[in-house]
Amino acid sequence: MEDIKDLARRRLLTGAAALGAGALIPGCGNSSPVGSAQAAAPGGPQGRYQAEIAIVGAGLAGLSAARQLVAAGRKVLVVEARDRVGGRTLNRAVTAPGAQPGTVVEVGGQWVGPTQDRVLAMIQELGLSTFKTFNTGKLVDFRGGRRSEYAGRIPPGAFLGAVEAQVAIMRLNSMAADVPLDKPWTAPKAAEWDSETFQSWIDGNLFSDNGRALLQLAIESVFSAQPRDLSLLGVLFYIRSAGSLENLINTEGGAQDSRIVGGSQRIALGMAEALGSDRILLNAPVLRIEHGDQGVTLRGDGFEVKAQRAIVAIPPTLAGRIRYAPALDGLRDQLTQRLPMGTVIKVQCVYPKPFWREAGLNGQATSDVGPVKLTFDNSPPDGHIGVMMGFIEGSDGRAVLRQTPEQRRQGTIESFVRYFGEQARNPLQYIEQNWASEEWTRGCYAGIFPPGVWLDYGEALRAPIGRLHWAGTETAELWNGYFDGAIRSGERAATEVVAARA
Amino acid sequence: MEDIKDLARRRLLTGAAALGAGALIPGCGNSSPVGSAQAAAPGGPQGRYQAEIAIVGAGLAGLSAARQLVAAGRKVLVVEARDRVGGRTLNRAVTAPGAQPGTVVEVGGQWVGPTQDRVLAMIQELGLSTFKTFNTGKLVDFRGGRRSEYAGRIPPGAFLGAVEAQVAIMRLNSMAADVPLDKPWTAPKAAEWDSETFQSWIDGNLFSDNGRALLQLAIESVFSAQPRDLSLLGVLFYIRSAGSLENLINTEGGAQDSRIVGGSQRIALGMAEALGSDRILLNAPVLRIEHGDQGVTLRGDGFEVKAQRAIVAIPPTLAGRIRYAPALDGLRDQLTQRLPMGTVIKVQCVYPKPFWREAGLNGQATSDVGPVKLTFDNSPPDGHIGVMMGFIEGSDGRAVLRQTPEQRRQGTIESFVRYFGEQARNPLQYIEQNWASEEWTRGCYAGIFPPGVWLDYGEALRAPIGRLHWAGTETAELWNGYFDGAIRSGERAATEVVAARA
Repeated sequence: MEDIKDLARRRLLTGAAALGAGALIPGCGNSSPVGSAQAAAPGGPQGRYQAEIAIVGAGLAGLSAARQLVAAGRKVLVVEARDRVGGRTLNRAVTAPGAQPGTVVEVGGQWVGPTQDRVLAMIQELGLSTFKTFNTGKLVDFRGGRRSEYAGRIPPGAFLGAVEAQVAIMRLNSMAADVPLDKPWTAPKAAEWDSETFQSWIDGNLFSDNGRALLQLAIESVFSAQPRDLSLLGVLFYIRSAGSLENLINTEGGAQDSRIVGGSQRIALGMAEALGSDRILLNAPVLRIEHGDQGVTLRGDGFEVKAQRAIVAIPPTLAGRIRYAPALDGLRDQLTQRLPMGTVIKVQCVYPKPFWREAGLNGQATSDVGPVKLTFDNSPPDGHIGVMMGFIEGSDGRAVLRQTPEQRRQGTIESFVRYFGEQARNPLQYIEQNWASEEWTRGCYAGIFPPGVWLDYGEALRAPIGRLHWAGTETAELWNGYFDGAIRSGERAATEVVAARA
Repeated sequence: MEDIKDLARRRLLTGAAALGAGALIPGCGNSSPVGSAQAAAPGGPQGRYQAEIAIVGAGLAGLSAARQLVAAGRKVLVVEARDRVGGRTLNRAVTAPGAQPGTVVEVGGQWVGPTQDRVLAMIQELGLSTFKTFNTGKLVDFRGGRRSEYAGRIPPGAFLGAVEAQVAIMRLNSMAADVPLDKPWTAPKAAEWDSETFQSWIDGNLFSDNGRALLQLAIESVFSAQPRDLSLLGVLFYIRSAGSLENLINTEGGAQDSRIVGGSQRIALGMAEALGSDRILLNAPVLRIEHGDQGVTLRGDGFEVKAQRAIVAIPPTLAGRIRYAPALDGLRDQLTQRLPMGTVIKVQCVYPKPFWREAGLNGQATSDVGPVKLTFDNSPPDGHIGVMMGFIEGSDGRAVLRQTPEQRRQGTIESFVRYFGEQARNPLQYIEQNWASEEWTRGCYAGIFPPGVWLDYGEALRAPIGRLHWAGTETAELWNGYFDGAIRSGERAATEVVAARA
């Protein structure tokens, strides 16, 4: 039994090609190939499929929607562009000598934390387990050319800055409390807050170099964008959505609290297994959606899916790249022009052991020098091999997008050596993931809100258009941008569909 | 001869359907239908086409590129999604009783002015002529519930505000002088200026209600966006690109100085005529571009175009919706996620005569109440019929995107009555154009720069990627966002192509 599960998991992970496309939808009687001259995606489906609800995207949002709809007795088909499920979660094998077989690291989203109730419940439902992010030992701070180690929360010499940042955080939390999660644009000061960048707010409210630097790094690491890219209202909404800014930035007790044994993609793989491969079409980019009173038709190269309704569970910017017939109204379309994805390259180096632990370090570094300005110990639970992970975020990420992987590897190692010494010089394996260059993601962690967008386009974010429903973590009220928000958004869309007349 | 020209013009204007698609490319020997099961666009091309240079988009940029390449002896094919040429220029017939046959108004861009040398030269080359925007008489201002008429440049009661706005404009012009047009992100204060919205700049630099209102309206009317949507650096670049902020906002002597006899779409129609219909494919949305060392292939439903190089001459946000194989790098792709189109509904009412002229008014009104906050006399040159034109811009535009045309008509008439009296109550004809809802435009006047985009993505705006070149007014150095910039961008891309090895 375990073997069969493993096989199914492997198939969903590695793509449908090995399965033979036909085997994916054994239950769909009227699947007949169409005579398209356009080349279909390799291993992609051919022919016509039918379901009650078609779902675009097999990330956490789409799979959660499917799961809830199946529980409600609906016939669903999840249509996924890639050769795998999981969206912005993805396990990658650690193949370095000494790594136990099956060891993985996540190259996408990886953490869960307290109050993320829906994803924690899903982890339990799927029989998965979590473990704490390694957090024992001192931190490293590199600033003004000087490296220092420290315990507690405040880097040496940054006391006043830390106090100022803490006051700012309390003030932001308090402002965020005035932002209604369902309609941020109705906040009493929405117009004022959506008229300035978060950088302008920093410039007007923090005055010590250290305080500004701390808050800037916090924002960069939460949004993988620069404070100047973000609306103040957008940041406040995000804070409210997560409960507090501390929830967003903390490791222990915050959004970086815990990891999933076996890698975070297991959540998606588990949901996909439960759905069964006959409910998921892989290698099937949806290029066009026809919609009307009678139903919807999703079309890709060589295949079509007819359904009563569709849930589009991909980031808004990608949803805007699908052709709709009839074309969507200007408000919805212009919204999709205005929610760009953040920018992050996630880099990881594998070492024979987590050597920094022996030096009393927890592997977490902050820095004012790139390319990597933030690191974590990302070793497997038993620490039998060491994995140092870094983020190249926002402007730093954009600056290396056109570098070769080898150039980024060099920059990463230089950063790691700067924070953890010469032992970091020769990793056994370098693993990077450049989400902005992935055709079906185009950036991470999530879509961001520039100034003015919530105010003028917010109402078009979630509102269904006829038989089209919108999911994806960008549409979530709680834990927007996180796994938890993705799952909530899928379930909310499923609830809409069930409530709607067929 | 004139009849044949008219016929050709009408065909290009009204689409290829009447011509029969085959007739469009008589010179392409190897055009053979492909057996696609997907429905091709009505009247769209079928089969395979070949050219040296393929150009996506038959707006002013694409047509200018084609014109220059033909002059250099290259074989070009312009591939256009719509059933017409002209992009964001479009003539619409005035059919009201009393209108002379052939009377048109522009529902897209319409003006040219001094220093727009390339478009003025093109107008001359094509044998077209211009006439001055009607500008004789008093202006109307509606503010704080009060309507007033005034001569000169300053509304009554707004003297201090006007002085403050004038000082701000001088300051902006002076700052703009420090922005290099080829690389705005290298301006000495680029980081500071790209970190705040233009609204933040207004909030920090203007203090009278009238001064702020004047500058806000100026920005809204230039960008069809709110000051909060725009980077200060982006605004300064735009000012430099046009020479001065006065150049952007003035009627006489500015960007609204003159109109084209017969309507501005005549520029595109004239270029298309000169190219000949065998160099233009209409009804041909390009959905996919394959590119590599050997050349490029453009694909749409049922057709393909092979060429040595391609010029993509559409707004960046639309260029981002094409699928590229191989996929474009993250920097270029994320740029296209970050240049949303402005928002404007252009509304026009036709009356038996331009009655406001008899009241000593030039038809230009400004207002602090929407939906229409800015109007112009848009009557034909001889004024034999009256056309009052208004813009519903920025937030006002977004607020009416989901209204019915009848609702917008009512709002427009209420605005016109407010400014010009009861005679505006019953127009003979109402003409509106909602560019945001047009599938192949998705907003006007042009793509706008939110904070942070110039700084981190500017280098990806114009730089060719292999055999792909980028044109469109958003890529222009001079008169970015205008006809003149569009033409310059097409000619710049053509120059790149000629300079490149085949």
